Amino acid sequence: MAKVAIFMGSISDEETVRPCKDVLDKLGIECVYTVTSAHRTPDRTAELVDDLESQGCQVYICAAGMAAHLAGAVAARTIRPVIGIPVTASALGGMDALLSTVMMPPGFPVATVALDKAGARNAAWLAAQILALSDDEIASAIRKARGEFRIDVAKAAEKLASKE
Amino acid sequence: MAKVAIFMGSISDEETVRPCKDVLDKLGIECVYTVTSAHRTPDRTAELVDDLESQGCQVYICAAGMAAHLAGAVAARTIRPVIGIPVTASALGGMDALLSTVMMPPGFPVATVALDKAGARNAAWLAAQILALSDDEIASAIRKARGEFRIDVAKAAEKLASKE
Amino acid sequence: MAKVAIFMGSISDEETVRPCKDVLDKLGIECVYTVTSAHRTPDRTAELVDDLESQGCQVYICAAGMAAHLAGAVAARTIRPVIGIPVTASALGGMDALLSTVMMPPGFPVATVALDKAGARNAAWLAAQILALSDDEIASAIRKARGEFRIDVAKAAEKLASKE
Amino acid sequence: MAKVAIFMGSISDEETVRPCKDVLDKLGIECVYTVTSAHRTPDRTAELVDDLESQGCQVYICAAGMAAHLAGAVAARTIRPVIGIPVTASALGGMDALLSTVMMPPGFPVATVALDKAGARNAAWLAAQILALSDDEIASAIRKARGEFRIDVAKAAEKLASKE
Amino acid sequence: MAKVAIFMGSISDEETVRPCKDVLDKLGIECVYTVTSAHRTPDRTAELVDDLESQGCQVYICAAGMAAHLAGAVAARTIRPVIGIPVTASALGGMDALLSTVMMPPGFPVATVALDKAGARNAAWLAAQILALSDDEIASAIRKARGEFRIDVAKAAEKLASKE
Amino acid sequence: MAKVAIFMGSISDEETVRPCKDVLDKLGIECVYTVTSAHRTPDRTAELVDDLESQGCQVYICAAGMAAHLAGAVAARTIRPVIGIPVTASALGGMDALLSTVMMPPGFPVATVALDKAGARNAAWLAAQILALSDDEIASAIRKARGEFRIDVAKAAEKLASKE
Amino acid sequence: MAKVAIFMGSISDEETVRPCKDVLDKLGIECVYTVTSAHRTPDRTAELVDDLESQGCQVYICAAGMAAHLAGAVAARTIRPVIGIPVTASALGGMDALLSTVMMPPGFPVATVALDKAGARNAAWLAAQILALSDDEIASAIRKARGEFRIDVAKAAEKLASKE
Amino acid sequence: MAKVAIFMGSISDEETVRPCKDVLDKLGIECVYTVTSAHRTPDRTAELVDDLESQGCQVYICAAGMAAHLAGAVAARTIRPVIGIPVTASALGGMDALLSTVMMPPGFPVATVALDKAGARNAAWLAAQILALSDDEIASAIRKARGEFRIDVAKAAEKLASKE
Repeated sequence: MAKVAIFMGSISDEETVRPCKDVLDKLGIECVYTVTSAHRTPDRTAELVDDLESQGCQVYICAAGMAAHLAGAVAARTIRPVIGIPVTASALGGMDALLSTVMMPPGFPVATVALDKAGARNAAWLAAQILALSDDEIASAIRKARGEFRIDVAKAAEKLASKE
Repeated sequence: MAKVAIFMGSISDEETVRPCKDVLDKLGIECVYTVTSAHRTPDRTAELVDDLESQGCQVYICAAGMAAHLAGAVAARTIRPVIGIPVTASALGGMDALLSTVMMPPGFPVATVALDKAGARNAAWLAAQILALSDDEIASAIRKARGEFRIDVAKAAEKLASKE
Repeated sequence: MAKVAIFMGSISDEETVRPCKDVLDKLGIECVYTVTSAHRTPDRTAELVDDLESQGCQVYICAAGMAAHLAGAVAARTIRPVIGIPVTASALGGMDALLSTVMMPPGFPVATVALDKAGARNAAWLAAQILALSDDEIASAIRKARGEFRIDVAKAAEKLASKE
Repeated sequence: MAKVAIFMGSISDEETVRPCKDVLDKLGIECVYTVTSAHRTPDRTAELVDDLESQGCQVYICAAGMAAHLAGAVAARTIRPVIGIPVTASALGGMDALLSTVMMPPGFPVATVALDKAGARNAAWLAAQILALSDDEIASAIRKARGEFRIDVAKAAEKLASKE
Repeated sequence: MAKVAIFMGSISDEETVRPCKDVLDKLGIECVYTVTSAHRTPDRTAELVDDLESQGCQVYICAAGMAAHLAGAVAARTIRPVIGIPVTASALGGMDALLSTVMMPPGFPVATVALDKAGARNAAWLAAQILALSDDEIASAIRKARGEFRIDVAKAAEKLASKE
Repeated sequence: MAKVAIFMGSISDEETVRPCKDVLDKLGIECVYTVTSAHRTPDRTAELVDDLESQGCQVYICAAGMAAHLAGAVAARTIRPVIGIPVTASALGGMDALLSTVMMPPGFPVATVALDKAGARNAAWLAAQILALSDDEIASAIRKARGEFRIDVAKAAEKLASKE
Repeated sequence: MAKVAIFMGSISDEETVRPCKDVLDKLGIECVYTVTSAHRTPDRTAELVDDLESQGCQVYICAAGMAAHLAGAVAARTIRPVIGIPVTASALGGMDALLSTVMMPPGFPVATVALDKAGARNAAWLAAQILALSDDEIASAIRKARGEFRIDVAKAAEKLASKE
Repeated sequence: MAKVAIFMGSISDEETVRPCKDVLDKLGIECVYTVTSAHRTPDRTAELVDDLESQGCQVYICAAGMAAHLAGAVAARTIRPVIGIPVTASALGGMDALLSTVMMPPGFPVATVALDKAGARNAAWLAAQILALSDDEIASAIRKARGEFRIDVAKAAEKLASKE
């Protein structure tokens, strides 16, 4: 069963959110990946949360732009951790989505990550780190990936050195 | 029956929102004035909207701070006009509430007014202007108030002149 | 007779404002769609408001960029609801137009919607919601459109599911 | 006859604007000092501009907060130089008034100075510098004041040195 | 053993961070509550993370102001979830701490919550929600608290109604 | 003799500043148009100001980006009016240049206009309005241009109407 | 001879700048501590730089608020390192001074530190770190101070632990 | 031996950072130019600092985007001057990197320069100015470059004049 659900507020966010799914795939974590809107489909959003939760979903990831209310709407319906990806979707440089996502009132936290694709990746890493608390395979996969990050830096340093 | 409902997301916003009610009172417009939260009481919020609407409520005014989702949550549940008052409730100077309120996605507008008490007053004026489209008494009351605004300026100008 | 007037401060805003007219057209709401400027043509603006009002115009929608004073100038001349669309027209990402539009002083509200095309659409929806208070046909058209929004989300979700 | 007019949008701005008058007084420049509002009293504003202009007013100084449209409204009615003082009057730290004042469209400049009291003083200095182009007495007064600024710095430096 | 560690970057943040500990106490979740700095004591920070992790610490909460690097420094040393509380500690209204905390690069997420005391509370709620995935007692305590939130709103609404 | 000097801080600003010269040309106002830098050539800047002033230059227009100090450096050396054009030259959307230009301390105002090309045009209009105080030809040219602005709006409105 | 000069743009900045001198005093580094202004006393500023440089001054620290040009004016006159302390002196929360100080054009860097008192302290630490490159006593003093920072954190941690 | 080390947090910053190396090359200052990350490779970063310091490195230049912690991480490990280049790497226009770099707590200054390529160049100039305190050759090279800056301005002014 999918332990993670990725919701995006609009299909136009899909290209930005895709790296989130890619990281989960790479870590071998199954996920539900769908569109639902806080405003256009509040009932669908509530039902999705209820259904997925009864099927064992552990972490919700919500991506939205502008007045990004989706993560908050989900947070109001579950006590599972909710991760918010603010998406740049106006001329305001994502500040609207960032503040709408992170400034949640007491009792209903949204674990907010960076804007756009970097945030999409980190939402997946954060979900994985949460699941890894009780899943050694995921923990191993994360540790392995961190080793690869170190190798990437070393390789980049070598490449840079060789260019001189 | 109350034609306007004023919702505030937290009782701590009451002092800021009060001038909204004061303006409606002055214009002789009855209103419901209560607390409901997009996150703490999503069901209460939805039920309030349904109930008030069936009782003839025409305009919703929602005041909230931080990630101010209340107006958006109401806008998702009704096709009546929804007015949003962004309330300064963090160190960010109200920018969080302003962007969370105004940057709504297509189809679900929130008629956003200024921050804090000035916005609270204007939410009432805007609601009155909407109701005045089909209520001549309210239209007269607004026109009379505008006359008083002009007199206030004239009096202030005189007072200033007399001080010199 | 046109119940809605759309004013843009400059012909260069036309592409951004066009979706506002498109939504009104789709909802079957006739509108005046023209250019007038708070600074270049203050008299034309005042006369347009007076003329249209005497002909039954109910709602004014004003789009402007930079120091966006047009909506405020109209609000000072009418007690009909005025909706403001802030347009990004400088390097400041629309923040100039947004604050110039929304931060109106008490008594002269401008019902501000989101920046640019999303806001243009929402200005039309908001105007429609206001007119729908006394026009069942428009109310039906809005409700129907909301149903289509829900279908759009469902279709997008299906399309996404089928891609996996 | 007064060559400078100082308009403030609200009597609540008077304490902030007062240093503007003080500097003009000190330089021996007579001014009209009054309240008029772009939104509450658009007709009064237009008439004041027309009247003062026919009486020889050369420079307009306009102070306003929030969506500060006053300077722009005056600029639309005269070809005399208009100076704008943005006043902090909301939680946004004056950014609303600054952008509403400075970001004027081509053809209708507002000579914008700093926020609040520092700006109020500089509006007076700027008006004086403009008048000094054809008034040697004012030019002398400005040059003398600049000499006093230099002495102030020297005195402050001495005082600081003596404290050590 | 403590399953949550709360680190603050400076003792001057203690008053702001205290509500985080209060919420954990109320939920019956033991925590380590201490001061450590990314810059003044990088070794202490690294050792604390290693030691606490070996003792079973599951979630790290880091509060810091200005260029708030503490959460990131911890995130670089562990694959456990790290929650960041941005603290307002300069004239910039917390924007510095917020951006320094949330905009982490891929692979090293910091689950960022709101600024200051509201964020401190939510860091605790988020940590509890993460622990609740494998701890039914904590899950019950959270659900109970949510019930109390609903009652708080109802009581506030009643009190407001009785004042009229 | 040139009554206006246009200084740009860098030749890379030339395309942005060009519309300033175009407006002055159109109004028949001769100007000096050159490059000088507050930091790279402080002596050249000081000498230019002194030389031009002795030759009858009345108004200085300074365009600069980033930490835009040029207008301030000129303002410190003359009591003639100095107009500042903030130029967008970094990722900060011109906010750096705007604040560096407008927030001058008491006694040394910079008459700040909008960002970039719109501001370049308005710097020219403002200079012309200042010169027009004692030059009827320039006053006539400005009044004529304002008439053309009105015609432009009317033509745009007609064109828009004919498209429907 | 003084190896460091601290300039403040206005005596009103003295309380904010004082911690800079305190840190230098504590490290046994002699400094000149005076007021000079980029705009009110450009000649004094230039002469101070020339005089101090001929007397062996190595590092300039400049504190200023609003359109903080002082550090840039000094940087234009010397090839010695110039450190800028942005001071909050308007409603804009120091953003004006920060951007005016840090966004210097190529060739004329200002080593910018944090806003206000924290920045004042860091300007002193940075000056000391620069001097320590060729002065072992200062290097020792800095290392000793860093040891004290670590002890401060340990003591704060103990105190916090004992309160529980 | 290299007296300057340039660290970039990610190979994707290389194009932005390259002008830093170019300026140092032009001034004849040898440098280490490599990739290392505060989060992906904290140990490599610490070891690089220790190794380079023991080999005589005098100044560290660190370029990073988003939550730019690299300069701070280096500053925590050395008492040598650390220069920070904020790199625009998100939709926030570099504000995230700027604040994360400059707002360092007392005792651990990062000498922050402008964003992106302009800042990259200035980091090199600042490092050179620091080294020039004890290296007359570098001092001469900087003075010569400043002469070239002046010539560049003069040439640009001539070119502009000849175009008219």
